[in-house]
Amino acid sequence: MSKAVGDEGGAGDRSEPAPQPDDKSTGAKAPGKLSAAAALGPSWTKVSCPCCVSERVEPLVLVKLGEKVGPETKRWLIRVIGASQKDGGAALLAHPGEDAIGDIIVVSAPRCTLLRATEELGLCKTYRNGDMEAFSYHDRDNFKDSDNMEVFLTLAERQYVVKYELDGLRARRDLRIPGLPDGCTLHNRDNIWQKLGSAGVIVDTFPLHNPGKLKSLREAWYSGNQLAQPLDSVNEYFGSSVAFYFSFLDFYTWSLLPPALLGLSITYFSGEVQREMVESVSGPRVTGADGDDSGPAVSGHMLQAVFSMLWSTVVMELWKRRSSSLSYRWGTLHLADRFAEPRPDFHGDLGVNPVTGRVEPLFPGWQRDLRMALVSLPVVGMFLGLVVLGMLCFYWGEAQVKELHKDWDSLLSQTLIYMPSVLHILYTNVLATVYKTVANRLTEYENHREESAFQNHLTAKVLVFTFFNCFAVLFHIAFFKQDVPLLRKRLASLLIVTQLVNQVTEVVIPFLVDRFISAPHRKEREDDPEEDKFRNQSTLPAFPGLFAEYIELLVQFGYLSLFSCVFPLTAVLLLLNNLTEIRSDAYKICRLFRKPFTPPVANMGVWQLAFEVLSFVSVVSNCWLLLLSPRLQELGQEGGMSGTNMLLLAVLVEHLLILVKVVMAILIPDEPDWIRKKREHIEYSSMQALRQQKLQAEES
Amino acid sequence: MSKAVGDEGGAGDRSEPAPQPDDKSTGAKAPGKLSAAAALGPSWTKVSCPCCVSERVEPLVLVKLGEKVGPETKRWLIRVIGASQKDGGAALLAHPGEDAIGDIIVVSAPRCTLLRATEELGLCKTYRNGDMEAFSYHDRDNFKDSDNMEVFLTLAERQYVVKYELDGLRARRDLRIPGLPDGCTLHNRDNIWQKLGSAGVIVDTFPLHNPGKLKSLREAWYSGNQLAQPLDSVNEYFGSSVAFYFSFLDFYTWSLLPPALLGLSITYFSGEVQREMVESVSGPRVTGADGDDSGPAVSGHMLQAVFSMLWSTVVMELWKRRSSSLSYRWGTLHLADRFAEPRPDFHGDLGVNPVTGRVEPLFPGWQRDLRMALVSLPVVGMFLGLVVLGMLCFYWGEAQVKELHKDWDSLLSQTLIYMPSVLHILYTNVLATVYKTVANRLTEYENHREESAFQNHLTAKVLVFTFFNCFAVLFHIAFFKQDVPLLRKRLASLLIVTQLVNQVTEVVIPFLVDRFISAPHRKEREDDPEEDKFRNQSTLPAFPGLFAEYIELLVQFGYLSLFSCVFPLTAVLLLLNNLTEIRSDAYKICRLFRKPFTPPVANMGVWQLAFEVLSFVSVVSNCWLLLLSPRLQELGQEGGMSGTNMLLLAVLVEHLLILVKVVMAILIPDEPDWIRKKREHIEYSSMQALRQQKLQAEES
Repeated sequence: MSKAVGDEGGAGDRSEPAPQPDDKSTGAKAPGKLSAAAALGPSWTKVSCPCCVSERVEPLVLVKLGEKVGPETKRWLIRVIGASQKDGGAALLAHPGEDAIGDIIVVSAPRCTLLRATEELGLCKTYRNGDMEAFSYHDRDNFKDSDNMEVFLTLAERQYVVKYELDGLRARRDLRIPGLPDGCTLHNRDNIWQKLGSAGVIVDTFPLHNPGKLKSLREAWYSGNQLAQPLDSVNEYFGSSVAFYFSFLDFYTWSLLPPALLGLSITYFSGEVQREMVESVSGPRVTGADGDDSGPAVSGHMLQAVFSMLWSTVVMELWKRRSSSLSYRWGTLHLADRFAEPRPDFHGDLGVNPVTGRVEPLFPGWQRDLRMALVSLPVVGMFLGLVVLGMLCFYWGEAQVKELHKDWDSLLSQTLIYMPSVLHILYTNVLATVYKTVANRLTEYENHREESAFQNHLTAKVLVFTFFNCFAVLFHIAFFKQDVPLLRKRLASLLIVTQLVNQVTEVVIPFLVDRFISAPHRKEREDDPEEDKFRNQSTLPAFPGLFAEYIELLVQFGYLSLFSCVFPLTAVLLLLNNLTEIRSDAYKICRLFRKPFTPPVANMGVWQLAFEVLSFVSVVSNCWLLLLSPRLQELGQEGGMSGTNMLLLAVLVEHLLILVKVVMAILIPDEPDWIRKKREHIEYSSMQALRQQKLQAEES
Repeated sequence: MSKAVGDEGGAGDRSEPAPQPDDKSTGAKAPGKLSAAAALGPSWTKVSCPCCVSERVEPLVLVKLGEKVGPETKRWLIRVIGASQKDGGAALLAHPGEDAIGDIIVVSAPRCTLLRATEELGLCKTYRNGDMEAFSYHDRDNFKDSDNMEVFLTLAERQYVVKYELDGLRARRDLRIPGLPDGCTLHNRDNIWQKLGSAGVIVDTFPLHNPGKLKSLREAWYSGNQLAQPLDSVNEYFGSSVAFYFSFLDFYTWSLLPPALLGLSITYFSGEVQREMVESVSGPRVTGADGDDSGPAVSGHMLQAVFSMLWSTVVMELWKRRSSSLSYRWGTLHLADRFAEPRPDFHGDLGVNPVTGRVEPLFPGWQRDLRMALVSLPVVGMFLGLVVLGMLCFYWGEAQVKELHKDWDSLLSQTLIYMPSVLHILYTNVLATVYKTVANRLTEYENHREESAFQNHLTAKVLVFTFFNCFAVLFHIAFFKQDVPLLRKRLASLLIVTQLVNQVTEVVIPFLVDRFISAPHRKEREDDPEEDKFRNQSTLPAFPGLFAEYIELLVQFGYLSLFSCVFPLTAVLLLLNNLTEIRSDAYKICRLFRKPFTPPVANMGVWQLAFEVLSFVSVVSNCWLLLLSPRLQELGQEGGMSGTNMLLLAVLVEHLLILVKVVMAILIPDEPDWIRKKREHIEYSSMQALRQQKLQAEES
């Protein structure tokens, strides 16, 4: 049956070249063609089951082909996309775009394919009783709106399903691809999409923007002065991973209010910052004269430090609760990627998966662990070592050059003074680039089964390195040079400079680009055929992912929690920064990039962990910085405490604070009570169902 | 129907008194009567379903009645025990013992009741494909040996089921108990067993020993010189909580080998202990002369400390893996007590449980949390404060008395010298007794739904207190007095004295009791009727629970991990102690006590956590003790390090070690790979089954 469909699709393609000459004139009609009913329009491949016939086919994903791809290859590809799954196809709908020889294929998905994939991905949807339940294809009629895909699934989910099906295409037998040289044959179980990508047939696959929805999203998101973000709409349009980022940004920004208020009041009441700033410039320990009012200043310092240490744990625990309610709301609480097909790059010996009983590549876990322990860990360690080495070389070089400048004092030596910094920046950048490639290779080599595991391990690797790179200098100043005023200067300048730079790169430049480079294009496109609009989207740069956004937040959080007691206004600056950050990030993702594919996720993944780890490291660093504070040392000497006793006291306080944080983290439940009940109810029903099923299997 | 059964049981009882006068002569036949087929013997209540009829009824549990209980009350009780569950009975089998007016009832369980309870408890049993799967009553024929209860369920499980059913008896309507004054009426939903207990009708309920099985267990366990314990038989006879204790004791004892060997070799190669012992007696810092060979000694010290810190984490992680394989093997991996009926003492407003949909008492979780935070926590803290107060008073009193003795020096003052110690010991004991009652009340007040949660919270409370009580003095010496030699002396004497005392109380005294007090009884019993044997078991003391055994191990583990670097032979002494401990504990539980009811458990519960916490605290204490070590301080001074720098180094090492331990704990998976796969398979099947069930519910 599906072969017939495929052939029909092919026939449709073959009939296409005829009207090609007058395609320009029918350009205005083309949008109608693309969104015409699938059963009527000649260009969409036909759906195989009656329930999938719909009035309108929504273009979801654009596949961009290589320039040299012949029409026979394109026809074959359309046939594969349209063929049913039992014939080795993706069971999607394909449209050849303007003409059969054009370099795009527009892909959509029929209802049945969408619903089946929803079950496979383990998404939860609203059941008829109003609860969220794991979707089941067989039981589809009991789920709300399951007849209207555009309401039932979010746009991001529909597009992800298309990608999921395309990525899952595997050759059923050895196969020559029509129109390609003999070298490019597909072997049994080869991943078709990957193979075509490496053969240059497919240049790009990306989801299409929906201009109407995008416009209303933008209006609700950042056009006005609204304080709350339309997170549900963001989830609907961009998918849960983007929505989780913006939810966290939102949550985190509002949670900066208490430390900001505290920082402001401490600054106001003690007038301390200005004084300390002056002091740090004029030299640390000359201000013994105003030791009389050092009491309140020190207690302000300590209050700030202790508050920020406890605050960070409370915030992270509350975020976990918020995160689990969001994932319940967005139906991603019970994702089943452990049980789904492995990701395309996963390789291993074919075997029966002991969990699901399906035949698929298997790779033993101990071998992955071994690879991580013996290869990944040492390599990552080596790169961290290279960062430290670079920093040491920089300090050594700087000292050498200063020495040289003192001896010579010429123009040459004056320019030489900048050499170490320039070299260090170059070195750091090269190292970061090399490291990113290496991290990707290492994670590939670790051979993770699930896409989420792959992403988490990759993120963790890059994250550790980037973080180390950012904080190495600050830690060096704090722990080895033990120079609090320098640290304060450095921190203040980092906060102000990086925020200014970020605001410029994230708001001003994008705005200029959009106004003066993209806008003329846009006007021109107004009466283009829809295919051209789609093709124009491919000229936008690809979305670079959320890594940069998250790491910016993490570094911020690091400044705040690790060194906040040095510079109490950190939270205020961050709060101001983030209020604009929300808007600029929203603007960026809506206007400046292609729409990204975003897999459904249940939480922030490894970022959650990174923030939590940082919040524990902050206790160590804050206690240390308080100990270094010249005021506190004076106070200790006045109180007759020796340096060793001060240190002991600091260690005691640190251990106590860590204990309090651990206890708080345990005591605040990670999910609200009502979510726990829903989850347990689902577990209980599953258990009951398993028993029932065994019984029925027995009876039949 | 069940009323008829009850009446027949009653009739059987009524016909019993007739042969009573010649009961002595038919004494030899009495065992036959008890174990005769239920359908034939007149004394066992009849079973209601044909599948439960068996050749032999196994006496499982003995219910001891109060002395004043009349035969009509006993008849009523037998009827309730025998009635089917839908008539509000326990669906068990009851036997009135020798005669209708005797004060015992012997209870057994028919097959159907056992199987249904197995499902309710969530026990796993061997499926026909050889895997362990959660038992399902409907699917019973596919489970191995499900027709032979004595193979299918362990003795401990069968006995626990009887207790579970008896404890679950609730009145269906307001009811007068025959033969009791009017004050003792049962109200609707009253727990019958609890009410009868408080009314004095039921004095005791305990499981019966099976002499044949006990004999073969004893032979395999401790009669010979065997090294391995028959853990599966222990699980079969005493249940999984006892088996988990002995498994852990076994595992822990063998894992003492590496530190014991290390301790021995350090002692042998450095000859250090003797020297340090001498040194600690003659005074700490006078041996500057032999500073030449202090290098190896210190490194031995440090090696021992670092080794024991890492060792404790590895041992606990490996134990977790062993523990999860054991719980798979014993079928307790998927216990469903969250979904089972709440424990008898649980109270709350009647409502629909959102998880299971059953009507039962509900108690909001936040209210429990509030009670823990506002009542339990302060009270426990207060008692810990009282311990510290007692210790301070003791030190103060001792100083006062010494002063007094110096001034007076009479016989009176000499006896007064012992007063503070005596008072302190008295105070500590009184405090411990009061605390145990208070802890029980507090945990009752917290109103936990599941028995396991109740036990864990109670254990945690008593555990913290006992531990504090044991270690307060040692911590005081180590952290406040900072007197390493005193600590070493105290530790060595504690290790040797407490072990000797334990060996005496656990082996010698029980042996003597058994030989000279119990043995004569036993001989006399040889040709007693079986009922009398049962009754005689009630003269044995009740099993005091595993708390004392676990706390002994925990305190040991504390000596070893917290202070091992002070006294390297700790592990050797503990190893020797534990090798006999295994046997003496086995002897104790087999011979000296009544058989305990043991609920099926999946792990050691809160004890696991206690050991893990201790292993982290050990890093702090070891680093501190190393820092205090006079040798290391000398070495530091020779190396030109100031006290502050030494302290900094110690703090750094401590943080690094904690980091390493955390990383190790994360990297070593908590369950072996094969268990993870089995678990995921069960989860996957449940998910699939849930979908199927919804579909079928829809179709029907």
